[in-house]
Parts: sequence; C-alpha cells; structure tokens
Amino acid sequence: MDTASSTEKIVKIDEGSIVSPKGFKADGLHSGVKKKRRDLGVIYCDGPASSAGVYTLNKIQAAPLYVTKESIAEEGILQAIIVNSGNANSCTGEEGMRDAYKMREEGASALNIPANRVAVTSTGVIGEKLNMDKIIPGIHQLKPQGTFSSADEFNEAIMTTDIVKKHSCYQTEIDGKLVTFGGVAKGSGMINPNMATMLGFVTTDASIEPQYLQQALSEVTDRTFNRITVDGDTSTNDMVVVMASGQAQNEALHPGHSQWNTFIEALCRTSEDLSKKIARDGEGATKLIEVNVRGAKNEEEAGKAAKQIAGSDLVKTAVYGTDANWGRIIVALGYSEIELNPDTIDISLGAIQTLKNSTPVVFSEENAKRYLEQDTVQIFVDLHVGSAEGKAWGCDLTYEYVRINAGYRT
Amino acid sequence: MDTASSTEKIVKIDEGSIVSPKGFKADGLHSGVKKKRRDLGVIYCDGPASSAGVYTLNKIQAAPLYVTKESIAEEGILQAIIVNSGNANSCTGEEGMRDAYKMREEGASALNIPANRVAVTSTGVIGEKLNMDKIIPGIHQLKPQGTFSSADEFNEAIMTTDIVKKHSCYQTEIDGKLVTFGGVAKGSGMINPNMATMLGFVTTDASIEPQYLQQALSEVTDRTFNRITVDGDTSTNDMVVVMASGQAQNEALHPGHSQWNTFIEALCRTSEDLSKKIARDGEGATKLIEVNVRGAKNEEEAGKAAKQIAGSDLVKTAVYGTDANWGRIIVALGYSEIELNPDTIDISLGAIQTLKNSTPVVFSEENAKRYLEQDTVQIFVDLHVGSAEGKAWGCDLTYEYVRINAGYRT
Repeated sequence: MDTASSTEKIVKIDEGSIVSPKGFKADGLHSGVKKKRRDLGVIYCDGPASSAGVYTLNKIQAAPLYVTKESIAEEGILQAIIVNSGNANSCTGEEGMRDAYKMREEGASALNIPANRVAVTSTGVIGEKLNMDKIIPGIHQLKPQGTFSSADEFNEAIMTTDIVKKHSCYQTEIDGKLVTFGGVAKGSGMINPNMATMLGFVTTDASIEPQYLQQALSEVTDRTFNRITVDGDTSTNDMVVVMASGQAQNEALHPGHSQWNTFIEALCRTSEDLSKKIARDGEGATKLIEVNVRGAKNEEEAGKAAKQIAGSDLVKTAVYGTDANWGRIIVALGYSEIELNPDTIDISLGAIQTLKNSTPVVFSEENAKRYLEQDTVQIFVDLHVGSAEGKAWGCDLTYEYVRINAGYRT
Repeated sequence: MDTASSTEKIVKIDEGSIVSPKGFKADGLHSGVKKKRRDLGVIYCDGPASSAGVYTLNKIQAAPLYVTKESIAEEGILQAIIVNSGNANSCTGEEGMRDAYKMREEGASALNIPANRVAVTSTGVIGEKLNMDKIIPGIHQLKPQGTFSSADEFNEAIMTTDIVKKHSCYQTEIDGKLVTFGGVAKGSGMINPNMATMLGFVTTDASIEPQYLQQALSEVTDRTFNRITVDGDTSTNDMVVVMASGQAQNEALHPGHSQWNTFIEALCRTSEDLSKKIARDGEGATKLIEVNVRGAKNEEEAGKAAKQIAGSDLVKTAVYGTDANWGRIIVALGYSEIELNPDTIDISLGAIQTLKNSTPVVFSEENAKRYLEQDTVQIFVDLHVGSAEGKAWGCDLTYEYVRINAGYRT
C-alpha cells in the first residue's frame, strides 16, 4: 500500500462535515415519503465540481443509478446530489426510470443548474413506486446552506435503520494550500423488503480533473468501502460519489503530481473512517471487527482473506460470544481462495497470539476473553508467503441481527 | 441434467442402510475420545471395493485427508473406512500425520487387510492431539456386522452436534441385477473450536472400475453435497467416500454402458437425500429451504444462483420470520455472478408467484405467510435466459444458530 510521504500532516477534524470543503452546502428535510423523519436531502456545490462514482456490483440496479451514471458520464461534473430515503425506486420498471429522471429535472430547476449536473439517489423499500407527489414539492423546499447543522440534516435525511449518524472530515496541505475532505454515509440498516444499502458521499475542495478523481475513488474504494461486510449482501442501490470543487486552488492533481499519494491517503482516511462507522453500525452489531492480514502475495489477496474472515458467520458469532476461537479464523482463511502455506500461519487476537506456524500456542483464555469484550476487536493474521497487507471490517453476529431481519416486514 | 430413462425404477428403501448393498458390514462403539457417546466406527467390505473420494476445498486440510487420498490413489480399492468423532486431528502438524497413519495401520491389522485399503477420517475439535490411547484399543474392538443396528451404531459414532441420524438407501436394476446404494452422513453440527464438518459415506454393490466411480462421484457431488449450505463455511475435514463392492454382478459400469445414467441418477438420489437431511439439521435450523433455479445459461450457473439464494443470511432470516420477502431473493440473485437479464426474472414462494418479469405481482401475504410456516420451503426462480436448471438446499437462520455458535466454547 502506498503511503503519503507527508502522512503526519493529514489531520482529522472532529467538527468537520461535507460542507467543510470550500464551495459546498447541504440541506435535509421531511417531505412525507417517511412518516416522520427527514427523508430528502441535497449536497450542492456553488460551482462546477469534478465528480466520480462507484456503484453496486449487483446486476439488479435501481433506476437512480442509471441516471446518476448518465449525469457523470456527460461532463464528469456535478453540482448537486439529491437523495431520498424511505423508497429505493428499485424493481420499478420504466415508470421508475421516468421518476428518477423527473427527480433530476426538478432538482436542476430548483437549483437553476443543468440537469446533467445533478445526481439522484434513493434508498428504502424496493418494488414500490416512488412517492413523486411528496418528493417534487420537497425538492423545491430544499435550501442548501454551509452550516454544520445543514450537513447534519442531510445526514439524517439519508438514514434508514441506521442507529448513528456517520460523517468524517480530514485536512491536509497540497501545494501549500489547505485541502479539506468531508464525508457522510449511511448503512448498513435493512431496507424493506430488501437489505443493507450503503451510500457514501465525499466532498473535497481539491482541484483534480474528473478522470483522475475516478481513478482515485476506485483505488480508495477497493481499500475501504469494498472491504466492509455486514452480511455479505450487496444492494441494488449501493453508491459512492465524490465531488471536488477545486476551490482550494492547488495545482490540479494527477498521478504524476508530487503529492498525489497525499491526496489518495487523505481520501482513503475519510473513506476508511466512514467504512468503520458503517461496519460498527451493522444490524444488531455490538462490536467492530477489524481484520489485518499481512504477509500475503499481494494487496488484493490480503484484502480478500481479511474480508473472508470478517464476513464468516462463525467468526462473527465467536466474537459476539467472546470466544477465542482461532480455529474458525484459520478455516475462513483456508477457503478464501488466496495463496497460502498451510504450515506458516500466525494468528493473534489483539496482542494475544493463538497460532504460530499453524500450530496452537498456549494462551490465557481469560485474557483473550477480556480482550474480546472490547468494542473494537482486532484480528491479526500473518501468512508469511509475501509482503503485502490489507484490512477489512465487519461486525459481530447477534440475536438482534436475527430479530431485526426475521421480524421486519411482518 | 441427464435423467435416467428408467427413472421410475429407482426406489427408496426406508429401512435400508450402508450395509444393505452386498458385501458391507459396519460397527460403531465408544472408545473414550468423547465422554459418553459412540465415537469410533468402521465400514467394512468383505472383498476389494472400487473406491473414490471428494475432499474439502479448504486449503487447510486435516491429516486423515492426506492419508485417505494416499490409500485411494494406490489401487483405487478400499475395504474399510475407520472414522472417529470428538477430535478432528486438524492443525496438529507432523504428529497428527503420524497418528493418522497409525490409525490406518491399526485398522489394517485388526481387519487383516493391507494398509492401503483402509481410509481414515476424523471429526471434532481442531488443534488437539488425537487420543491414540483410546483409539487404538477401540479399533481392535470393532466387530463389523451386516445388521441394520450395526449400521445405526456407525451412524451414531460419526455424529457430533447432529440432532438426527442421516441415512439413505435406494435400489435399481442394472443389467437385470438388483443394485443397492446405502448412504450415511454427518453435519452440519459445529465442531469445537471449529465448524460444520460434513462427512458422507456411500456404499453400493454395483460393479464399476475406480476411475469411472470417481467420475460419477464428482459429477453427483457437484449436484448434491456441493449444493448445500448452512453458513458458507467449509471445514478442514469435509469428505465424501464411495465404495462399490461389485457383488451385484452387473456388467462393469462406464459412461458408454446403456444404464450409466441410471447408475448416476441412483447415486444422485442417495446423495441428494443425505444432502437435504444435512441442510435440514443445520445448526439451529427449523426449516429446510430448497431453491430451484430454472432458465439459466447452464447447469453450473443455475446451481450457483440457487446456492447464493439458499446461503443468503437475509433470505434465511426472512424464511425464519415467515416473511415473503422476494426483494432479498432477487438481490441475492443479482450478486451471484451469473448471466441474467434484470427484466425477465420470475420468483415464486411455493406456488405463490411474487415477481413476474422482474415486476412485483400482487399476492396474498396471508397465504404466503402460511406457506412459509411449512417445514420445507421451496423457492422457485426462472431467469429466462437459457434452459438449464439446478437446485440448492439450506436452512433458516435463527436465534438458536447464534446461541449455539456464540456460546459453544465458553
């Protein structure tokens, strides 16, 4: 994994948000799609912002994804993202496509910008027609502002069964200019009658051309959003969009820029922070599980193995039960389809080594149990077949997960 | 899927077992690896039996798998399978290999047959040395017999957290000779500190050369044992072995034999019956879920899609909650990495259609709920992209699964 030479200068801003980078405003309100809570929001940029997106790999994709892809494909520029929650506009056929386009048009008209500079996103029930009679008037009531509370209202408007709000902010310097990254995300709350939709939106005032922004986002997503797992299901609506206003006035970034790695690293930290918050807020979860795999053949295999462990129901239940069950970890590793040597595997739970060279190590079950009672549980694996490393994040599997998912619709 | 021309003549024998085919005997006893229950068993053939095996795809494999593969590789002939439960002899290093070889030698000596005609299998705790002081005397006390009760004792001896015994028997005629298939299996009970090991043993008195038996077993396993899922984890000890005594005296079977398909189909039914019993007895399960996917590009993709649906935690919890949640089914389909057309998918829960051409159908939630309360829930999917079909089996995900797996070791 590349790391920035100036890593020490990438700083977390606790009170920052998606409106912290220059040029961005936001809003969120209750339009009536949901009964009571906010269900419609906007992120707005006062000038053209280079934009890039990554989308669910599910072959069934909701209507707004097609429309957003079309908008970004046009110029690589967005000025607004309109999001509703409560209804995913998925499995809704041609009518759903018409509604997604209509949402985009109304957003463009309300904000007085071209339609192709508007992205649209929906999350919620699938198989039901979008409530356009609520959404259209709602769009015209949106009043984007640059305050933390407006960003917070946007955050609320994209939540479904999320328990906590998820936002993040980092700052660094590029070309001597202060560059800020703001992020907001939802997931992994269940969507009736569907599942854990994940949405992520990142704003930055960095200057960067759309094609390089897309390259950066794809690279960062592979190391962050694509490394979280709650129950292994991918939604029809998953999407991450990044907008870069350029108002920090650094020299335009590209892979040959001397601080390209700094930019990647800052975007990565923002995304990783959001990813961990999503995993920790997984349905019914009581703990965040972070798996670190080292000594892999390459970064892709390290990430794959880490995600297989983080996603194993048997590992997840063991963590819930504070059971130092290294056997389940080595087994998940064994079926992760990566290169490994069955005789050289080390496993530690936090600082407590349980397996060395694939042979059990005597350890204190009591210490291990105490460690597993923490809110964050780190699992370390060293494969000793190469020098690459990678992380993945998940959560424990609990009675509450079963309760939420067995009892939701009925 | 090929079907036998004489399908109607493949008959289930309710009272049959692994000793029903000519030449086979069995026994099971308590050696002391477990506290109280039977933990050591043998299947014995009074003459050389063509044999074939399929093994876990996990890259971490237990010692007995190496020894069994070596035995079968030597001549393709076995006369005995020795199995212990309570200890998996996995992650036990060189000492584990020595113990597995010793188990094979003692079996050969006790039964007075060559060592390479003995297979060995273990299931239970991983990472602990095999209790050879219990197993060696136990092996010498085994007295294989041809009675149903001796087969039943073998069945008990391979159980771990299995709740029910799993056996199966089918008969057909080949070349005018009565050919019998007997099967026994264990799984998917959890193995401390590990997981759902699946073992399957099939006996038949058909006459068939080892290489064709291997071909048949591999083909059948792809359609049966490889199509079941409890929690997606594969064990270090999974194994299916088939032994064919040849004592039915049919002409030796090969793919050009006019009744090759009858043989395949009978082996398939025996294996499918065991597979369903394993899925239904999944940890904490209250229901068997059978997924039928039709209209796929090829049989492999049909099976892959069916297994993805049967293995989705969200589908499993919905079935547990008797929630007619077709959205979760189409979503699982969408990420199953098969060829599909997002606009032509039909889904039915039992006889109740919920989705036609990817568009929701109005259905009675009450009828659907009543159907989902059955012990066996069938999900039908038609992709309309080809003409292949395939099935997979799983079980619901319940509070009890979490209880068993969170609380086992501690």
